[in-house]
Amino acid sequence: MTQSISKQTQPHSPTRALASLGLVLPPPPKPVASYVPCVRTGNLLIVSGQLPFRDGTLLATGLVPDPVSVECAQEAARQCILNGLAVVAGACGGSLDGVARIVRLGVFVASCDGFTEQPKVANGASDLLQQIFGESGRHARAAVGTNALPLGASVEIEMMVEVR
Amino acid sequence: MTQSISKQTQPHSPTRALASLGLVLPPPPKPVASYVPCVRTGNLLIVSGQLPFRDGTLLATGLVPDPVSVECAQEAARQCILNGLAVVAGACGGSLDGVARIVRLGVFVASCDGFTEQPKVANGASDLLQQIFGESGRHARAAVGTNALPLGASVEIEMMVEVR
Amino acid sequence: MTQSISKQTQPHSPTRALASLGLVLPPPPKPVASYVPCVRTGNLLIVSGQLPFRDGTLLATGLVPDPVSVECAQEAARQCILNGLAVVAGACGGSLDGVARIVRLGVFVASCDGFTEQPKVANGASDLLQQIFGESGRHARAAVGTNALPLGASVEIEMMVEVR
Repeated sequence: MTQSISKQTQPHSPTRALASLGLVLPPPPKPVASYVPCVRTGNLLIVSGQLPFRDGTLLATGLVPDPVSVECAQEAARQCILNGLAVVAGACGGSLDGVARIVRLGVFVASCDGFTEQPKVANGASDLLQQIFGESGRHARAAVGTNALPLGASVEIEMMVEVR
Repeated sequence: MTQSISKQTQPHSPTRALASLGLVLPPPPKPVASYVPCVRTGNLLIVSGQLPFRDGTLLATGLVPDPVSVECAQEAARQCILNGLAVVAGACGGSLDGVARIVRLGVFVASCDGFTEQPKVANGASDLLQQIFGESGRHARAAVGTNALPLGASVEIEMMVEVR
Repeated sequence: MTQSISKQTQPHSPTRALASLGLVLPPPPKPVASYVPCVRTGNLLIVSGQLPFRDGTLLATGLVPDPVSVECAQEAARQCILNGLAVVAGACGGSLDGVARIVRLGVFVASCDGFTEQPKVANGASDLLQQIFGESGRHARAAVGTNALPLGASVEIEMMVEVR
């Protein structure tokens, strides 16, 4: 009974959520160029635009929806978030428990002319954040298309995160 | 005479300005996808990218200037701002009087290759903000082109707003 | 000896760094349209998107890498930063010494379809900031491509800067 009360009042833990989703944060990705992965100003972490690297390789390159399907681009968007969260954890002593709130995502989708489902691609990122952080993972978002992204990536995502 | 003094010292009211412009804020638009209309962090409201919906329909879809004229795109930019301000009012207890300052606009214009008048389109948004908020409506801005926007919209605008 | 100790403990001065690089800030550029060069909110300066104007002319117009080479685009990116820093200095009483930290760059590169070296272009901006500000010049960054920028510019850069 005490246990159940304790469970009830236990705050949502992104660390436990990650584990229950079977997800492990990658090592923080190195910047592609001469900038830093994130900067803290006040209680805000500004995280550099993340590409969908996994184990050193881009998950998806090329325009959406051809040759890259919306589903592949969603998976790439999830990977961008995992990489961004690795940066955040690195800036917060190794854990996501210092995150107060995901504030904003800027989502850029490499798009064929006439492609209009950038929100669906970006949902790969947004849904994952809500799974990991619960209510604190709900964020503002701007999702747009572009004709060309660094290294030919299909998706790039930057984050603004409030930390404690 | 007392009245005139009182008028002189009366601060600029965005609510009165809206009324005198004959404008009514729409109901806050629902997000197109799994994110929230805005997030407050400290005194900043970060408003999600707004599309030019009016009464449930996009005012303008397609690239500028063909098939969408610069004038139509300006009107779409105004509508994005009205929708964004509806979000802001919703977050401020129903009124715009809690706005201290419009800080930043990010303006994305769906552009034909070679189109270079994104600033003119964005002025539809910027001019309206100055009409509504006066000096407090003057903001920083980044206006860029893109080949593709969500749902085929001609304009998407995100806002950063300082509130009291 | 006292001099050498004093040198050692002297903080990095962006003003001296500019001089030693042989750089002079231009007069703050006028906005292309109805907005302001920057807005301060709390300790943050949000600087409007800067185009690579030098002496009233754009340094580079057109897409990268054809007709504008990566090297020319890097030089344009440097000019965007000089123009942005002129805005910052204007907001800080004429000097850059009030800058606590460069927080974020948003870099938009007008890109041919298939161009993927936006980070290399953006390095023109990032490297200059580190030369001028040292450790405080290291920033978060999102660099993306676009098919069209205002006035046909090859690069547009916006900045977020923490001031004292």
